[in-house]
Amino acid sequence: MSNTLVRSDLFMHSPRQDAEKVAPGIHRKLLGYDSDLMLVKVWFDKGAVGEVHAHPHTQTAYVVEGKFEVYVDGRTEVLEAGGCFFVPSGAEHGAVCLEEGILLDIFTPARMDFLGQDEGW
Amino acid sequence: MSNTLVRSDLFMHSPRQDAEKVAPGIHRKLLGYDSDLMLVKVWFDKGAVGEVHAHPHTQTAYVVEGKFEVYVDGRTEVLEAGGCFFVPSGAEHGAVCLEEGILLDIFTPARMDFLGQDEGW
Repeated sequence: MSNTLVRSDLFMHSPRQDAEKVAPGIHRKLLGYDSDLMLVKVWFDKGAVGEVHAHPHTQTAYVVEGKFEVYVDGRTEVLEAGGCFFVPSGAEHGAVCLEEGILLDIFTPARMDFLGQDEGW
Repeated sequence: MSNTLVRSDLFMHSPRQDAEKVAPGIHRKLLGYDSDLMLVKVWFDKGAVGEVHAHPHTQTAYVVEGKFEVYVDGRTEVLEAGGCFFVPSGAEHGAVCLEEGILLDIFTPARMDFLGQDEGW
């Protein structure tokens, strides 16, 4: 699945003020991506909820700051800075922010919907 | 390129003591991965050098801590916490650690060589 029509800059920074509000208490900024790979920085206020959902993209995520209760495919764990979770293609997953923080969400292929484009699945 | 034979745990933590020394001043720990996607946490001592190299994997990286001079495809920038760079498939890239820190390296497909397996390219 290659598409040279989309690609981020080679170098980026990620100040909070550049983030876009995407849900109550949740702000998002796209970092490095092309159509095959996408890194997304997500700021969560305490109590914000990433509702349980599923998508065909394979995903992994890293906790930069804060504390999250994370659900993946029937299992729930609390993760703090340095914690990571992996979401197989199609697996249900979600997160509740227990202490204000930042997640890095990583997808393959890219979340074309985040770029306002058709996913093409 | 799907391969269900390799996959990380669904939940992981990443204390420094679990990291493996892979070069002078550089320690590495694999986090979330399957054959399509791999997240790798890399600790750099000040002065450590990720030599300029290239690989067919598409890569992006995020600076968690510290300061790095990063080269990608003819361009050089200094990145601190929150900085990100993107490496197109086949592009030359490297990093010099200016202040002790941590990079997250993200690849698609997975770096099968990091798992001791044949890349299959």
